[in-house]
Amino acid sequence: MTDAKIPYSLNSKAVAEATRYWLHKRGVTLEEIAELVMLLQKKYYPGLTMEECIHNVEMVLSKREVQNAVLTGIQLDVLAEEGKLFAPLQEMIENDEGLYGVDEILAFSIVNVYGSIGFTNFGYVDKLKPGVLERLNDKTTGQIHTYLDDIVGAVAAAASSRIAHRKQAEIEQKLGLELEPEDVEEAARRSRLEETLPE
Amino acid sequence: MTDAKIPYSLNSKAVAEATRYWLHKRGVTLEEIAELVMLLQKKYYPGLTMEECIHNVEMVLSKREVQNAVLTGIQLDVLAEEGKLFAPLQEMIENDEGLYGVDEILAFSIVNVYGSIGFTNFGYVDKLKPGVLERLNDKTTGQIHTYLDDIVGAVAAAASSRIAHRKQAEIEQKLGLELEPEDVEEAARRSRLEETLPE
Amino acid sequence: MTDAKIPYSLNSKAVAEATRYWLHKRGVTLEEIAELVMLLQKKYYPGLTMEECIHNVEMVLSKREVQNAVLTGIQLDVLAEEGKLFAPLQEMIENDEGLYGVDEILAFSIVNVYGSIGFTNFGYVDKLKPGVLERLNDKTTGQIHTYLDDIVGAVAAAASSRIAHRKQAEIEQKLGLELEPEDVEEAARRSRLEETLPE
Amino acid sequence: MTDAKIPYSLNSKAVAEATRYWLHKRGVTLEEIAELVMLLQKKYYPGLTMEECIHNVEMVLSKREVQNAVLTGIQLDVLAEEGKLFAPLQEMIENDEGLYGVDEILAFSIVNVYGSIGFTNFGYVDKLKPGVLERLNDKTTGQIHTYLDDIVGAVAAAASSRIAHRKQAEIEQKLGLELEPEDVEEAARRSRLEETLPE
Repeated sequence: MTDAKIPYSLNSKAVAEATRYWLHKRGVTLEEIAELVMLLQKKYYPGLTMEECIHNVEMVLSKREVQNAVLTGIQLDVLAEEGKLFAPLQEMIENDEGLYGVDEILAFSIVNVYGSIGFTNFGYVDKLKPGVLERLNDKTTGQIHTYLDDIVGAVAAAASSRIAHRKQAEIEQKLGLELEPEDVEEAARRSRLEETLPE
Repeated sequence: MTDAKIPYSLNSKAVAEATRYWLHKRGVTLEEIAELVMLLQKKYYPGLTMEECIHNVEMVLSKREVQNAVLTGIQLDVLAEEGKLFAPLQEMIENDEGLYGVDEILAFSIVNVYGSIGFTNFGYVDKLKPGVLERLNDKTTGQIHTYLDDIVGAVAAAASSRIAHRKQAEIEQKLGLELEPEDVEEAARRSRLEETLPE
Repeated sequence: MTDAKIPYSLNSKAVAEATRYWLHKRGVTLEEIAELVMLLQKKYYPGLTMEECIHNVEMVLSKREVQNAVLTGIQLDVLAEEGKLFAPLQEMIENDEGLYGVDEILAFSIVNVYGSIGFTNFGYVDKLKPGVLERLNDKTTGQIHTYLDDIVGAVAAAASSRIAHRKQAEIEQKLGLELEPEDVEEAARRSRLEETLPE
Repeated sequence: MTDAKIPYSLNSKAVAEATRYWLHKRGVTLEEIAELVMLLQKKYYPGLTMEECIHNVEMVLSKREVQNAVLTGIQLDVLAEEGKLFAPLQEMIENDEGLYGVDEILAFSIVNVYGSIGFTNFGYVDKLKPGVLERLNDKTTGQIHTYLDDIVGAVAAAASSRIAHRKQAEIEQKLGLELEPEDVEEAARRSRLEETLPE
């Protein structure tokens, strides 16, 4: 039968692409997230470049755990904007209700990807709402970003944690300390892939 | 103007009632959740009654944090059942994708309400799927309970933690140890309320 | 036999008292924590009093989950101060190592007691280090407060969440909305206790 | 001056080595942890080998977040065994008090390293106590493993999550789906390192 159901199989590439697509469609650029990272980290690493910040944001967004949270949060924002949630969830998300904390919970699953050291940075930007977060919090536009503003702050906090880990690794390398590879297998797998590439 | 927007104000009672309504509508009774609690706790408290289990489930469900997670999770299940989520989130929730963990994240915000001691009980019932959880995991019905099965297990785990705290308090009271009220204010507030009631 | 081991039985009062004792001994007063709460909340509740802030800090500190985290964290600080931890844990805690995040993890178990809405407030005070937190972060004293500064910020954040929940309940009561008691049983138990008191 | 203090600098290699050392010293082998992984995963991946399980345990143990939790937990176990904690923390850890949940909190920071999909596996082994966990829970030995048993279960659960992520990646590669590298930079960095090695 032609309409026999094809067994479900996750397509990780589709999940990654949808994450990029929806962030873009909801008006958030990687550069804007990277600017939050710069704001959080320039004090500690004066030589930090925007390229590094963007790169680290991209690395955070390549994680499945992060993609799941981004997609789920944006989906709830979009449905709230269209008025399609049931009461009183519709009203709580529409009004960014202070006692509704599921947006913070999703944000934390993002921050957690690079460990607890990012908790502080998340709280800080979530409170002060610098840069893109101010725009996402503007309640006069008719757009609903109850989840997205927390998500963007969380991605920036996670990217900051990632930078902290990498900078430490760089320092230790310079000091001639032996490298303790975070993920030797990963590297091995890729070097095998590279071997198969045409020269 | 008659169509002036009434400022949003959270109605906690409506949130509590919607939580009960949606659990019922999705086919889960308090008794079934209480049976999971009994399964988890009877070994430790042989005299535990179903009435106590039901009561503790009700207390868990009276918490705002829990209500928020229950409503958000069921909403996503319902929308997935109606095919109204965007791809590939639709496919991931529809198929209870193993690498999609946002359902576990919401479940954990429920378990957490009575602290980390409930983590173990949650994982245990979520793995073994006893009682109502087996029915919720039946993929042949056309119903989607990707969130609800984790939520129900989490409510049972939280109720188990609550029982552990209460049983300890009972033991200490019998031993004549002074009571360290968990929440003196709460009691005071209620006794004041009661004073104002007509006799 | 006289030296037969008495079976272990938790004494909750002793745990609560040790929590107060150790906070005091490490130089932190409830008033100082309450000042952090005031700083975080006065913007939202202009009529908030220091008495209310202190009371809410006390309520947070009456929770077992909080007491466990406070005692464990202070214990590790004290042992680090005495140089009694094994290497390299000793060095990491002694130097408040940036990539050591177990202090933040304990802090989060405190914040979580009143739900995810406190995450933001925790991060904010943990970053800005106002009031007592500045003193706890002074690395020139020889004292080690790697855990305590996060713990104090977390207690203040949790107390802020508690206030947010209570203030909402007050608003709803004034609006004549029926009360949905957070914990009916608790009230019932206490009113029974009060009945047994001599007049 | 010869006694001038050398500025503190984290040595990641020392942290990694201490983690291995202390697990070994407390009687836990990587093979035993790998056996828990096999128990949890063989149902889903019939061809899974012990080598793969061991490798994944090693990868989990190479993460800083995991090392911090392992070292902190074992330190508290050791101090409790030596009777060096203050009361009543000493008694709570010594007796693996049911209402003391800081051990579970540390365990969760380990599970979280590969996301929320590991929560269930952790709870399951923590409840059933198979293999090495049964030995660690034997209260008749005089040894205290209040933290270590949760830590070992958490490492096994995290390794299981890691396997789930890798197996999915393998399936997608076989299906000819393009690879979305989890961490392109990592691979690039290592391939650069390899270029510098003598042939």
